[in-house]
Amino acid sequence: MLAVTILGNNSALPAFDRHPTAQVVMLDEHQFLVDCGEGTQSQLAKYKVRRSRISHIFISHLHGDHYFGLIGLLTSMGLLGREQELHLFAPRALKEIIDMQLKVADTQLPFVLHFHPLGEEGLLVKETKFEISCFKVQHRIECWGFRFAEVKPLRKVNAEKARAHEVPSSFFERLKRGEDYTAKNERLVKNEWVTDAGSKPKSYAYSADTIYDERIAEKVKNVSLLYHEATYLKDLADRAAKRFHCTTVQAAAIAKKANAERLIIGHFSSKYEKLDDFATEAKEVFENTELALEGVTYRV
Amino acid sequence: MLAVTILGNNSALPAFDRHPTAQVVMLDEHQFLVDCGEGTQSQLAKYKVRRSRISHIFISHLHGDHYFGLIGLLTSMGLLGREQELHLFAPRALKEIIDMQLKVADTQLPFVLHFHPLGEEGLLVKETKFEISCFKVQHRIECWGFRFAEVKPLRKVNAEKARAHEVPSSFFERLKRGEDYTAKNERLVKNEWVTDAGSKPKSYAYSADTIYDERIAEKVKNVSLLYHEATYLKDLADRAAKRFHCTTVQAAAIAKKANAERLIIGHFSSKYEKLDDFATEAKEVFENTELALEGVTYRV
Repeated sequence: MLAVTILGNNSALPAFDRHPTAQVVMLDEHQFLVDCGEGTQSQLAKYKVRRSRISHIFISHLHGDHYFGLIGLLTSMGLLGREQELHLFAPRALKEIIDMQLKVADTQLPFVLHFHPLGEEGLLVKETKFEISCFKVQHRIECWGFRFAEVKPLRKVNAEKARAHEVPSSFFERLKRGEDYTAKNERLVKNEWVTDAGSKPKSYAYSADTIYDERIAEKVKNVSLLYHEATYLKDLADRAAKRFHCTTVQAAAIAKKANAERLIIGHFSSKYEKLDDFATEAKEVFENTELALEGVTYRV
Repeated sequence: MLAVTILGNNSALPAFDRHPTAQVVMLDEHQFLVDCGEGTQSQLAKYKVRRSRISHIFISHLHGDHYFGLIGLLTSMGLLGREQELHLFAPRALKEIIDMQLKVADTQLPFVLHFHPLGEEGLLVKETKFEISCFKVQHRIECWGFRFAEVKPLRKVNAEKARAHEVPSSFFERLKRGEDYTAKNERLVKNEWVTDAGSKPKSYAYSADTIYDERIAEKVKNVSLLYHEATYLKDLADRAAKRFHCTTVQAAAIAKKANAERLIIGHFSSKYEKLDDFATEAKEVFENTELALEGVTYRV
């Protein structure tokens, strides 16, 4: 199971009951928080996301609308008696800010906070069933996107066929990993004779804040679900570029180039109260687009 | 006109739709923000307090539930194009935190932020019609209370009596300031013959977070309206003391000792969903007590 719940879809500041950026990515029983704008702890409570289940937090960049809610969330986790370790991936300077805020409050977190400064593109977390990696995007300051991907799944053993080929069940685990079977008499049983392909591995990519940059399409190639920022409607392409942001059609163009299956767009400018045109414009370029709406969970 | 609007009345973390501490004090056409927990900018919007009219911000201490919303408010003021200067009174260490957060975002505020570190008790702001001062309270870390006081008002000239005593109207401004009038023939007109006392000057004191400390009663002596924290009900006096907080009856005892006219209590612990008992307990000691409720304006 791979899904993302949007907690904040607005840019820069809260407006029209929209909140600054935060998302929860769910991967089987794991929960990851991506960005943490002011008020995220309240949004987590509102949408009944159990913060105790969050094991990793990823911060894309140090503009306030993407991290001002983090210190409040961390200290609240402490006040609520969290004991599990927490992993934080973020631009290096964040550590000093957090340390200073804890120091002036004479506060120590009761859990271990592992700080991992972001430094180069590539793998951040590798588990048996999934991997999380980061990639650079182009913003006014250092900024990172994140990709959550299921690992290529095990093949499914067709027990009937395997028995017909006299493969012992003790070899089934190796069949799942794609190995052929060779019997003692040198008889070969090809893996594909007795197994079926597992389902296609799913993936989710978060583009963070970025100017239009076609290199991102390469970095999120073939992703199942792409979140791409679309701060402005298409008539404001100049303003978008000047502020290192994107428009609706630019986000859609990246999804198309990347051969993404589906696109959600967010990070809407506070100048827009109504969002209908965002979907309309993006769909003209990439049909399978939806708005990233707060409280909604998008299953991959 | 002196009044206070409560924006947040909870302690430590948001709970039961209550927010961490923030208040707006209105003194004639002036607006002052006192403490600024996470989400204060949204609470200001919700209760239609125009942030552009806030000229001074006072931060009592550097526990997050009293200032984590400040950096978001400041940067939002900047994004919204604020040009008026802003005065910030706070413990000294806050400046470094703000400076670092602006620096990593490569952001400059478009308005002048005057930072005034709190250092000793006494006057912070002196205007013709009002004065704002600070006083120390006893918390786990350096912590300050604030007092907003109208200056002793001018006397009111009774024009009819003044004319009967042949005081020229050119002397009326000096009558207002309490002076006697002496005519050229040495005839004396005593001030109180031709003027009436102005209304009693009003005052509001904010006790911030504090352990029970009778010295506070001296510091807020004869205040018109006292806000005193009451984090716990009276059965938890031990826990309150251990955490440098107060109970209902302790807050009420300070109001009584201070000869305050009225008391509002707040900073309720997140362990309490219902607040009725807070009012009941405090009123047993000091009848003129109300709960500090979010969105409510208490006029002095």
